[in-house]
Amino acid sequence: MILKEEKAIVVFSGGQDSTTCLFWAKEQFKEVEAVTFDYGQRHRLEIECAKEIAKEVGVKHHILDMSLLNQLAPNALTRDDIEVEEGKDGELPSTFVPGRNLLFLSFAGVLASQVGAKHIVTGVCETDFSGYPDCRDVFIKSLNVTMNLAMDDTFVIHTPLMWLTKAQTWELADQLGVLDFVRNNTLTCYNGIIADGCGECPACKLRKRGLDEYLRSRKGASHVRF
Amino acid sequence: MILKEEKAIVVFSGGQDSTTCLFWAKEQFKEVEAVTFDYGQRHRLEIECAKEIAKEVGVKHHILDMSLLNQLAPNALTRDDIEVEEGKDGELPSTFVPGRNLLFLSFAGVLASQVGAKHIVTGVCETDFSGYPDCRDVFIKSLNVTMNLAMDDTFVIHTPLMWLTKAQTWELADQLGVLDFVRNNTLTCYNGIIADGCGECPACKLRKRGLDEYLRSRKGASHVRF
Repeated sequence: MILKEEKAIVVFSGGQDSTTCLFWAKEQFKEVEAVTFDYGQRHRLEIECAKEIAKEVGVKHHILDMSLLNQLAPNALTRDDIEVEEGKDGELPSTFVPGRNLLFLSFAGVLASQVGAKHIVTGVCETDFSGYPDCRDVFIKSLNVTMNLAMDDTFVIHTPLMWLTKAQTWELADQLGVLDFVRNNTLTCYNGIIADGCGECPACKLRKRGLDEYLRSRKGASHVRF
Repeated sequence: MILKEEKAIVVFSGGQDSTTCLFWAKEQFKEVEAVTFDYGQRHRLEIECAKEIAKEVGVKHHILDMSLLNQLAPNALTRDDIEVEEGKDGELPSTFVPGRNLLFLSFAGVLASQVGAKHIVTGVCETDFSGYPDCRDVFIKSLNVTMNLAMDDTFVIHTPLMWLTKAQTWELADQLGVLDFVRNNTLTCYNGIIADGCGECPACKLRKRGLDEYLRSRKGASHVRF
């Protein structure tokens, strides 16, 4: 409650996790702004989705063009010409680069400093840790110190999902009163289908497994309660 | 000497400091590549200068487009529209943002990881510390840890100028046998005049004061020696 008077920036992709974080932040802080990184996502719908949600929720939405990440993709770097150019639209090189969260969160930190926000909220999660070292709690804590030294300031990085399972993330959305909103308005599906998605891709399966697990446990809990 | 077998990335602006670092790195490492951040510098000549030097020295030169920094400049963020767009060429907003070194060095780290370099060399200097918290040694060391956690790797950030005065940086160039090269090919001047510059702007004055101090001390030392 003490945080109510302060301002936060939420790193926001329009997916289940960061949308849940956005609602969490709305509960915790007086003022919330969202930032989305546009790096040529496979589905432009992802950005559209994020825009829609931010509008619906009524938060200021910064969309930062991060197409420069393409300049760091392996095929951009191994070319023979001296200058490394941006990938052309439609033929984007793979934009996955290690340390991506280091870049995104550093930008979020600089943005926070520019808009006078002390708090940065991100949906990174160590429980679902799938080999990305920059989703680990130890990295986030180290970055928090580095960021504060870089700008001689006292930012706080919040990771409300760090230790939650997918089912618990659904539970959090439910506690915040937005389970249906998150279920119906977020994009997880690799095939670009909103809400419950195609149901077949790994992302849909993971999301559904968590949701089913949570809904089952809620039903079980109701049985006990009544 | 043990470093000879390894590869380094030098953060390289084409100025006196980073050019001296480039030559330092050439002495220390088997393979050196340079990275320049193009963020709409006041003088395009700065980038041209960097290109020329890299070519002359014979190192691979990455020029990363960082115009997205403009999206973080105050006037870009205070506009009323929801999306924050890039500044147009010729009417660039002030690109100074706090934490800029955090962003540049993080990009250099990711680039290092992509090209298989373990070492990152930067000309930041705490002696000339002029209020930039992200030039401090404590920040660089913290970033080094954060970067290693982000990518689960063991990068080493080198700062050969950290504790040197301007005169000592000239001395280092002299020891490396490139004092004249650095003097004649680097750009420091706010008015965009290469080498000894306009002689009037604060950057020229600072550079000249250091050079004069070093040349005097060298002359003094010669007196003692002979």
